[in-house]
Amino acid sequence: MTVEIISIGDELLIGQTVNTNSSWIGKELSNIGARILKTISIADQKQEILESLKEIKNYTDCVIITGGLGPTKDDITKHTLCEFFNTSLELHEPTLKKIKDFFALRNRPMLESNHLQAELPKTCQILENNYGTAAGMWFDKDSTIFISLPGVPYEMKGIMSEVVIPKLKAQFALQSMFYKTAMTQGIGESFLAEKIKDWEDKIYDSGYSLAYLPSPGIVKLRITSPFGKKDELEIDKLFKELEIQIPRYFFGYDSDTLASVIGEKLKCKSLTIGTVESCTSGKLASTITEVPGASNYYMGSLLTYSNELKHKLANVSKDVIRKHGAVSEKVAIEMAQGGRNVLGVDICISTTGIAGPDGGSKEKPVGLVWIAIATPEKTTSHRLQFSQHRGRNINMTSLSALNLLRIALNE
Amino acid sequence: MTVEIISIGDELLIGQTVNTNSSWIGKELSNIGARILKTISIADQKQEILESLKEIKNYTDCVIITGGLGPTKDDITKHTLCEFFNTSLELHEPTLKKIKDFFALRNRPMLESNHLQAELPKTCQILENNYGTAAGMWFDKDSTIFISLPGVPYEMKGIMSEVVIPKLKAQFALQSMFYKTAMTQGIGESFLAEKIKDWEDKIYDSGYSLAYLPSPGIVKLRITSPFGKKDELEIDKLFKELEIQIPRYFFGYDSDTLASVIGEKLKCKSLTIGTVESCTSGKLASTITEVPGASNYYMGSLLTYSNELKHKLANVSKDVIRKHGAVSEKVAIEMAQGGRNVLGVDICISTTGIAGPDGGSKEKPVGLVWIAIATPEKTTSHRLQFSQHRGRNINMTSLSALNLLRIALNE
Repeated sequence: MTVEIISIGDELLIGQTVNTNSSWIGKELSNIGARILKTISIADQKQEILESLKEIKNYTDCVIITGGLGPTKDDITKHTLCEFFNTSLELHEPTLKKIKDFFALRNRPMLESNHLQAELPKTCQILENNYGTAAGMWFDKDSTIFISLPGVPYEMKGIMSEVVIPKLKAQFALQSMFYKTAMTQGIGESFLAEKIKDWEDKIYDSGYSLAYLPSPGIVKLRITSPFGKKDELEIDKLFKELEIQIPRYFFGYDSDTLASVIGEKLKCKSLTIGTVESCTSGKLASTITEVPGASNYYMGSLLTYSNELKHKLANVSKDVIRKHGAVSEKVAIEMAQGGRNVLGVDICISTTGIAGPDGGSKEKPVGLVWIAIATPEKTTSHRLQFSQHRGRNINMTSLSALNLLRIALNE
Repeated sequence: MTVEIISIGDELLIGQTVNTNSSWIGKELSNIGARILKTISIADQKQEILESLKEIKNYTDCVIITGGLGPTKDDITKHTLCEFFNTSLELHEPTLKKIKDFFALRNRPMLESNHLQAELPKTCQILENNYGTAAGMWFDKDSTIFISLPGVPYEMKGIMSEVVIPKLKAQFALQSMFYKTAMTQGIGESFLAEKIKDWEDKIYDSGYSLAYLPSPGIVKLRITSPFGKKDELEIDKLFKELEIQIPRYFFGYDSDTLASVIGEKLKCKSLTIGTVESCTSGKLASTITEVPGASNYYMGSLLTYSNELKHKLANVSKDVIRKHGAVSEKVAIEMAQGGRNVLGVDICISTTGIAGPDGGSKEKPVGLVWIAIATPEKTTSHRLQFSQHRGRNINMTSLSALNLLRIALNE
């Protein structure tokens, strides 16, 4: 089943609203084995809508249209569909009853404009909306299905889940694609590709495909199988090989985050953790505590932004700060060790760096960061060099610190 | 200037990534007076890309293409563009130098695949990328400009802001709309609309339009004038009236954040600040330190997640915790006052709450939060009730704490 998704709404074009509808529909339909050919967003204008409908290729099995079904003047999808399918509106009694009930339940008066929402094209099948007043519509034309849905996300999702997806599944013999994604941290896309190129060849030899999905600090590796879930074991085996090849970078699958993976390990080993942060100033701790139940292992932190507080709270020696500067290996080590004692935790991570945009020098440029990890056995320190961008430096430092901790916990 | 945006990437079609690039581009180009005709997302496939390029109408002045410029095998945009524009690749020395510098700065070896990123189409103008290794490309064909940019958002944004937008502005006589946006915190969209409805009528009477742009905790109010920048003073006057009407909620304009507004006030008054956080665990401090130069007024924080650390670090009385519970007005007050002393700051904000999803009770449901602010003059406390969602509760608590501090600083 091939699908094209058309989203109607000026707010999408001017960037006032991010189009989450088409990604949600794309995900749901991919999951049942559809192939999404294209998604487009266009303005609330009759000519634009008509033109997009005319451009649909005859090899497209299904077109999902969202938006423009509301009760206000700028909602013109229904009328435009009538023109395209050469039909007219008529009152649909079951929908009128639904709309009346909708307002009665909420104790609100029904307006003329809502009454008009029960007038629907003669030649379509009506798709019941249990979440709002705009019904969905299903048209068959030649060999293509056209489905029109409201743009309000939870109404669209309701009709998709309850009506559209079951109907499509019944009509098409779908062969599901299967996806699995591995998560890596600490290696750029091109280095990763270089490192795993033999493994990548194997993926293609098996008839699967591989995608690199980079975001700051993280590269996801997604294998897609056109043969469906039956190949899950085979794909798991391939990923196991990857895990062994890149243990410093690989940290999990699909919805895993560094913080969730570390949380599991800490719980497993009954270890507690805390942080002493300078340049990240809370970003590291807040990332750790994004995970529900973090209070089982995370105790607290010292955010020692000023040199004075590095000394006062974490017992970093004033002499060491004077001699080596706040951004130095020695200070990072003393912060982690001091924090471990003061916070009374098993493991303490420290960060100190120059986040920028100012404060850099030739010896210590913006983006220079020291991270230390103090465990009951030892303290390790790590020098990293990031970019000029403050927000990115802070984020990259947090991710790197978490990955270094993950590696330490595996040892 | 009419624009079409093409996003390339399977991950967009299968819903793995939400397409924030096209909304960002749509917003930026609308702001300079462009009209976005259409945005489309297509697969990383040569035929799809070629077909979309061929379908571009001759009345489209500018096509922005994002994605597929990475160093890995699935990145095929550059080769496809060569085919479409009937040209070939050649080594671009300045880009090669930039890529070399990029890796040298990071102390990392450069790979063959990165070297290949310096091979660029002969017939295009190269758009410098200061944030990564994939240069942008600018092609002129007949009366349409085709611009190809990397899909990594901060690289794309960098090239757009630094190169593309200035070039487009120079080339097209754009009739700018004028936009100005007021920022509010702490009031929902519909309550705000009810409160300011007379003011809103004035906006429309003046020939402007008003948009409510809600995101969690923040509602932006954007006035759009079709008459361009010459109406700026008139719009400023209208916004001044709004400021007086909603002083508890209004906090700034356009790119102002709560953290930047507070930073300015603290610098002005030569006051220092710190935080003692439980439920937000670093989110508040990291929001404050997102602002460059925060070290002028922000000293540090105690993240006292465990009860023990609330006592040990911030001197909260064990009895008070036992009697009232960690999430209570008394504990919030003692955290703020204790933190003020320990951190040696003028002002200290504390947060304690039940972020969820677990840990709630009938008396203290998930989403209950206490915030206290200790200043040299007094300590105030504030009870807030948020939702069931952990991430949202943490975020809303940080925003609310900052807005309460802003109000306190204005007194």
